[in-house]
Amino acid sequence: MDQITVKAETLIEALPYIRDFNNKRVVVKYGGSAMLDKSLEESVIKDVALLKLVGMKPIIVHGGGKEISKWIDKVGMETHFEEGFRVTDKNTMEIAEMVLNRVNKNLVQMVEHLGVKAIGICGKDGGMLQVEKKMPNGKDIGYVGDIKSVNTEVIDTLLENDFIPIIAPIGMDDKGDTYNINADDAACAIAGGIRAEKLAFLTDVEGVCMNPKDPSTLVSVLNLIEANKLIESGVISGGMLPKVNNCIHAVNSGVGRVHILDGRREHCLLLEFFTKRGIGTAIIGDDSELYSNEK
Amino acid sequence: MDQITVKAETLIEALPYIRDFNNKRVVVKYGGSAMLDKSLEESVIKDVALLKLVGMKPIIVHGGGKEISKWIDKVGMETHFEEGFRVTDKNTMEIAEMVLNRVNKNLVQMVEHLGVKAIGICGKDGGMLQVEKKMPNGKDIGYVGDIKSVNTEVIDTLLENDFIPIIAPIGMDDKGDTYNINADDAACAIAGGIRAEKLAFLTDVEGVCMNPKDPSTLVSVLNLIEANKLIESGVISGGMLPKVNNCIHAVNSGVGRVHILDGRREHCLLLEFFTKRGIGTAIIGDDSELYSNEK
Amino acid sequence: MDQITVKAETLIEALPYIRDFNNKRVVVKYGGSAMLDKSLEESVIKDVALLKLVGMKPIIVHGGGKEISKWIDKVGMETHFEEGFRVTDKNTMEIAEMVLNRVNKNLVQMVEHLGVKAIGICGKDGGMLQVEKKMPNGKDIGYVGDIKSVNTEVIDTLLENDFIPIIAPIGMDDKGDTYNINADDAACAIAGGIRAEKLAFLTDVEGVCMNPKDPSTLVSVLNLIEANKLIESGVISGGMLPKVNNCIHAVNSGVGRVHILDGRREHCLLLEFFTKRGIGTAIIGDDSELYSNEK
Amino acid sequence: MDQITVKAETLIEALPYIRDFNNKRVVVKYGGSAMLDKSLEESVIKDVALLKLVGMKPIIVHGGGKEISKWIDKVGMETHFEEGFRVTDKNTMEIAEMVLNRVNKNLVQMVEHLGVKAIGICGKDGGMLQVEKKMPNGKDIGYVGDIKSVNTEVIDTLLENDFIPIIAPIGMDDKGDTYNINADDAACAIAGGIRAEKLAFLTDVEGVCMNPKDPSTLVSVLNLIEANKLIESGVISGGMLPKVNNCIHAVNSGVGRVHILDGRREHCLLLEFFTKRGIGTAIIGDDSELYSNEK
Amino acid sequence: MDQITVKAETLIEALPYIRDFNNKRVVVKYGGSAMLDKSLEESVIKDVALLKLVGMKPIIVHGGGKEISKWIDKVGMETHFEEGFRVTDKNTMEIAEMVLNRVNKNLVQMVEHLGVKAIGICGKDGGMLQVEKKMPNGKDIGYVGDIKSVNTEVIDTLLENDFIPIIAPIGMDDKGDTYNINADDAACAIAGGIRAEKLAFLTDVEGVCMNPKDPSTLVSVLNLIEANKLIESGVISGGMLPKVNNCIHAVNSGVGRVHILDGRREHCLLLEFFTKRGIGTAIIGDDSELYSNEK
Amino acid sequence: MDQITVKAETLIEALPYIRDFNNKRVVVKYGGSAMLDKSLEESVIKDVALLKLVGMKPIIVHGGGKEISKWIDKVGMETHFEEGFRVTDKNTMEIAEMVLNRVNKNLVQMVEHLGVKAIGICGKDGGMLQVEKKMPNGKDIGYVGDIKSVNTEVIDTLLENDFIPIIAPIGMDDKGDTYNINADDAACAIAGGIRAEKLAFLTDVEGVCMNPKDPSTLVSVLNLIEANKLIESGVISGGMLPKVNNCIHAVNSGVGRVHILDGRREHCLLLEFFTKRGIGTAIIGDDSELYSNEK
Repeated sequence: MDQITVKAETLIEALPYIRDFNNKRVVVKYGGSAMLDKSLEESVIKDVALLKLVGMKPIIVHGGGKEISKWIDKVGMETHFEEGFRVTDKNTMEIAEMVLNRVNKNLVQMVEHLGVKAIGICGKDGGMLQVEKKMPNGKDIGYVGDIKSVNTEVIDTLLENDFIPIIAPIGMDDKGDTYNINADDAACAIAGGIRAEKLAFLTDVEGVCMNPKDPSTLVSVLNLIEANKLIESGVISGGMLPKVNNCIHAVNSGVGRVHILDGRREHCLLLEFFTKRGIGTAIIGDDSELYSNEK
Repeated sequence: MDQITVKAETLIEALPYIRDFNNKRVVVKYGGSAMLDKSLEESVIKDVALLKLVGMKPIIVHGGGKEISKWIDKVGMETHFEEGFRVTDKNTMEIAEMVLNRVNKNLVQMVEHLGVKAIGICGKDGGMLQVEKKMPNGKDIGYVGDIKSVNTEVIDTLLENDFIPIIAPIGMDDKGDTYNINADDAACAIAGGIRAEKLAFLTDVEGVCMNPKDPSTLVSVLNLIEANKLIESGVISGGMLPKVNNCIHAVNSGVGRVHILDGRREHCLLLEFFTKRGIGTAIIGDDSELYSNEK
Repeated sequence: MDQITVKAETLIEALPYIRDFNNKRVVVKYGGSAMLDKSLEESVIKDVALLKLVGMKPIIVHGGGKEISKWIDKVGMETHFEEGFRVTDKNTMEIAEMVLNRVNKNLVQMVEHLGVKAIGICGKDGGMLQVEKKMPNGKDIGYVGDIKSVNTEVIDTLLENDFIPIIAPIGMDDKGDTYNINADDAACAIAGGIRAEKLAFLTDVEGVCMNPKDPSTLVSVLNLIEANKLIESGVISGGMLPKVNNCIHAVNSGVGRVHILDGRREHCLLLEFFTKRGIGTAIIGDDSELYSNEK
Repeated sequence: MDQITVKAETLIEALPYIRDFNNKRVVVKYGGSAMLDKSLEESVIKDVALLKLVGMKPIIVHGGGKEISKWIDKVGMETHFEEGFRVTDKNTMEIAEMVLNRVNKNLVQMVEHLGVKAIGICGKDGGMLQVEKKMPNGKDIGYVGDIKSVNTEVIDTLLENDFIPIIAPIGMDDKGDTYNINADDAACAIAGGIRAEKLAFLTDVEGVCMNPKDPSTLVSVLNLIEANKLIESGVISGGMLPKVNNCIHAVNSGVGRVHILDGRREHCLLLEFFTKRGIGTAIIGDDSELYSNEK
Repeated sequence: MDQITVKAETLIEALPYIRDFNNKRVVVKYGGSAMLDKSLEESVIKDVALLKLVGMKPIIVHGGGKEISKWIDKVGMETHFEEGFRVTDKNTMEIAEMVLNRVNKNLVQMVEHLGVKAIGICGKDGGMLQVEKKMPNGKDIGYVGDIKSVNTEVIDTLLENDFIPIIAPIGMDDKGDTYNINADDAACAIAGGIRAEKLAFLTDVEGVCMNPKDPSTLVSVLNLIEANKLIESGVISGGMLPKVNNCIHAVNSGVGRVHILDGRREHCLLLEFFTKRGIGTAIIGDDSELYSNEK
Repeated sequence: MDQITVKAETLIEALPYIRDFNNKRVVVKYGGSAMLDKSLEESVIKDVALLKLVGMKPIIVHGGGKEISKWIDKVGMETHFEEGFRVTDKNTMEIAEMVLNRVNKNLVQMVEHLGVKAIGICGKDGGMLQVEKKMPNGKDIGYVGDIKSVNTEVIDTLLENDFIPIIAPIGMDDKGDTYNINADDAACAIAGGIRAEKLAFLTDVEGVCMNPKDPSTLVSVLNLIEANKLIESGVISGGMLPKVNNCIHAVNSGVGRVHILDGRREHCLLLEFFTKRGIGTAIIGDDSELYSNEK
């Protein structure tokens, strides 16, 4: 097939998606390798800006764990872990908040530089993320929060006024204390809260594969029943298990489709959203009217 | 370059056009081979429907000369020509009106069948096209009209309510008589009247070529100065001359870009509008802010 | 009573109707003698234009049987009847569509010439009339359709934008084929679909008479119970029977009042709508809050 | 001509006026015989209510001189005249205000009783009529005011909310004192201030007659030039002179047409507004686009 | 505490009330001493104008009994009482209507003089107050009415357009006769009809006191249960009893809080509404969410 | 004067200001002692929240210099000064951005805790503050910026949606680099850009005093001419000089009034805005219609 024919077909293939996703809300969880490599970072930011330009309503939720660790070292503090979580005392939280807000404003700057409007917020702005202290196995690990409720007013305001909200995973409890939140959890809660059409996790794997060692066994679309079967049968396991559980949770919270994408691939968001086969794995509801092998 | 890369690049290339053309009015003059071949007809109608689906505001202006001739034969009448125009008496006009309206409603039906809303009108509806008798070299050739004014209210109403207007080139004079209008003229006048962003002529040639016998010499973009030079130097001549003159006229009437496309090529509208090089020739104003070699 | 007093009383009588009918939708089925006589045609078009000018929302549904027959003759085809219906093959349908659309655009022209906005459409525009093949006594008589559903979006759009919709009785089935529809049926279905306040049939009789040979026995208003009694007792019979059945059907479909008028009388629409006694017969629902001997 | 023909013609004649006057503001100065006779009062109120029902925006400005005199007698006070004006001291003004407001609320009650919404106000409400003391030939005659400015906000509010404003001719000066105003003057100032389409004076004469003793010499329409000529030539004189001067003043203030009507004739408003010849005299501007012998 | 501190505290205290009462409707029943003393009258009108200026929606309902009596004397009529009510024949009613409307327009004038917009209406305007004849113990005492229904459209219109409605307690029955209404009753019915947030009675006492002779025993807030207990125990008795019963009735009709204030105290409205303790007695519902000792 | 009288007078005094400042934009530059003392911080935040509650549109612009210095020490870096400015290399800027954003989100938290909506942004959000490198005496002192332009879209969006914008003084240049901005400059530029009614600087002095050592010589209001005279005469000098110059600059940029307040005084904002004398010094334009000795 010659190149001009591929172009015509790509357009014919993409246009209905562009129409269907017009004005739809799409949450992108941004983290992992795609955040550490400058060229990948630019590709992600460019994709998100393009999604906005063709009429979608993207929202970025980002992490920043590695940068936090770097600064903890810098000021000579130490990090302790308990039940797999970083113990977060007042001082650690102070540094985490400083670092995450700087990462946040950097992303704002990159989007603005492409001529697209963005505003960086955290879960304290507009009282967006109300949390309570996470107590894994009853242990107090400090200022690490579980999200109790999402107030979507700030996000709604920004989206209606054509800004891309860029969100740092920080929240506050009812006493006014500040808490760190796991970025995947924040993305799920926000996507559910705003009834997003899509939630995309940029990860360091290709998606769900029947044989994790063979990328050619990638599964393109899974409904909840299928996803649960693959968990029971052990096909989904290891590091993929919490990711898929997060997806299942998001679908159950009202998100239309949740995508596990390989953030190491340039333009992964465009290829997943605007082609029939996509490039990663989409998890959808059992009764989705959109259910098909198509993205 | 592998296919997935071509896809990603096609999307990156197309998305800014899709954004820029959002809500923009695009007149497609539909005639020639693309009207006679069933498969090409379907490709054109599908392209127009897709333009609508991704947010543009397409309008079709169609001809029907061959079908009129067929019916004139059928009822045993004869056709005379004077100064190169078909002499159109009351009876001929009656048949022309019947035939053009049927062609018109057939196109409506095809668009509706794709799930997109369309309404078929002629220049009498809403008093859209006011004409006066054309008098070539002072000769009366009957009910052939020159457009005096365009009342865009019907088109505005239909576009605002998300219908694709499909227009037969018929008008009326101030005495209430009905006239036939050249379809290219009608398309130009309408595109100018509604301040269309684009006007595309589907023709039976590839576009303007420096050497008409060598398609590889196709000129992708011409501004008015360049177009006039090519006319003076004789590069643009023969059947291409009136086409290019029409384009120049339309640009001068306020249309953003006028495209000469090869209607024999499937999806020619998509390829011209959503790729940088396009596939035909675009004529643009000298001071167009969009001026560049890109479409 | 002197003329000035009659004028004052006519105004006092008419004003409340003008108020009550403000913005109300009124379907006029236009056919019969009123369509063949040039002077009557002008009187009807003028009445409809005036109804629009004083704030009503008129819609014209027209026939064209005689003109179709004329053209079938002209091209040397023959007409066959089966079960009382014209057998309509592809060629016949082609001619019917051409003729009805021309009649349609002629009416548009007359209304426009009075300075009132009109648009001519058929049931294919905006997918307005969905039909299925009529099978009288199980016989296939070709492209004659029964209306399955009415999509009122086109009509709503035109009315909201102050156009008079003028409608040719043509529809399409789900395969995209074109069908002829009985104009009375089309008027009933459309009036029911748009919840018209009134539907007026212009006929060649004075209305329902207790003694059809004596116009002085005209019945001014009938409710459904009374109408059915007159059918049972044989007072309503012959050519009047299908007319009255159509009226009853329309009232049951939600139309406020259905009027049988003598289209041979000039300004019959104004006299029926704006005087207490009117000049024809109105059929109304049994529980109409408007029930009275007044129009 | 038979009665049914007169009816049809009356309707054909009236409908364009009804259309043209839709939403137009019409001030009716109500006084004289039409105010003293119970049956005429009902006819006027009914006409005004009908004007409202068919879409016009009527405003009533009323007098009450006879009733004021009656109450001045009742409380044993005396009336003095100076320069042709009633000398109005504090006590007289107090009674005048009480009486005019009661007349006002009575008219409100009559309109409301017909199911039409009305609100009674005077020139103090919403600061509508700002006056200064009238000083005829430099003499102080007490609380008699000349209108300095009209604040139309109250009237605009009431008209937009579909109330008929009924206005008593009372105003206040910048010190907060209350003044009586001549009702004809108030009607003129208000009609000019709200840019009324029409101002109608209900009087006790038939209109302007070339020979005041011969009603058959009534002039149907006069433009300003013609009116001034008739004044110069003495045809307009006596009690008719100030009336016509008021009309000329109103036309110069921007009122479309000013009508002198015979308030002793039932339904004079309907007959004047909705028939070509009307029944009184209309004064219009010299360059009125409506200028013709028609009303 | 020095004066600057009192100022700061007064502001801190008042600001939340100003916020809470924004756009809230407040009916002020104006009568008694506050109406007879010129300086108190100015203080009340100034308070009401300020309530409007800071965003509330005040409505004044006024009485006028003493002024009516004065005029009955003036014209030499006599007043009879039956069952404690003034017997109101046609002539008495005529005078009452004249007097109340004049009082009404005087108040309009005072408010307008402060630069705030007001309109004076009675219960006949817009058909606001529908009454039936009051028959105490079955006796006919003439044109004294009980309110049957309140049509709030006039008030709504005036409030939405930023006028202060000033209301005279006059109504009409379904035959179109005019009736006098007790001003306290009118204020209650109107406050209930428009779902007022507050209704304030300006009286000649300080409020409800546990010992009526000792102002220091003033009760600041009472809910319905407490109010009823004080009635049963006889603490509330004499002239205070009907006042409190009116308050209870108003709360039961949907008014948020009803205030009994001492109209002899300057700025009593501001002090009651914008300070925690207030200066009079507020009656509130048992389940009021606002229930507290604070105003 | 007893306390209840002071209260009534305070209310009478404050209410017109509350009305006049409704919906008006007020920028508060927050810094100095008021930022370091916990109790003063709470008083300021409470005042700002109350301004919002009574209908004003407050915006906070804050500094954070002392906290930045603390963190520079913490990570073992050193601070250099040049031409009186802190030399700001990449590392210093990184820390400044982290610290200012944390201070920013802390203020958000305090406002949200009072039940009022706030969003914390910096000049990079929505491309609000475009800067260029400051070059004092031609020396490069690093990432210290002068504001070139203010894009008010973010602030407009937040204000229209009832959020209090809280702004950190950080901007970006056209290359996408991040810069620190002097907080007083940022407050001036923003107040001018959004056409603020008021700009209030919370400082550590009482205002402009004729004799700086005697607070009783405080000047309540100064217009530009007077301010310039005091500068020329040396009355305004020392640390007060740049403050007053900033005020003059802001008034010239279109701000209505600029206030120098003593941030060490509790509720200084309320006392300045809502009392006639106020507590600090207001600088106003020479032609201010509000010019008077009153605040």
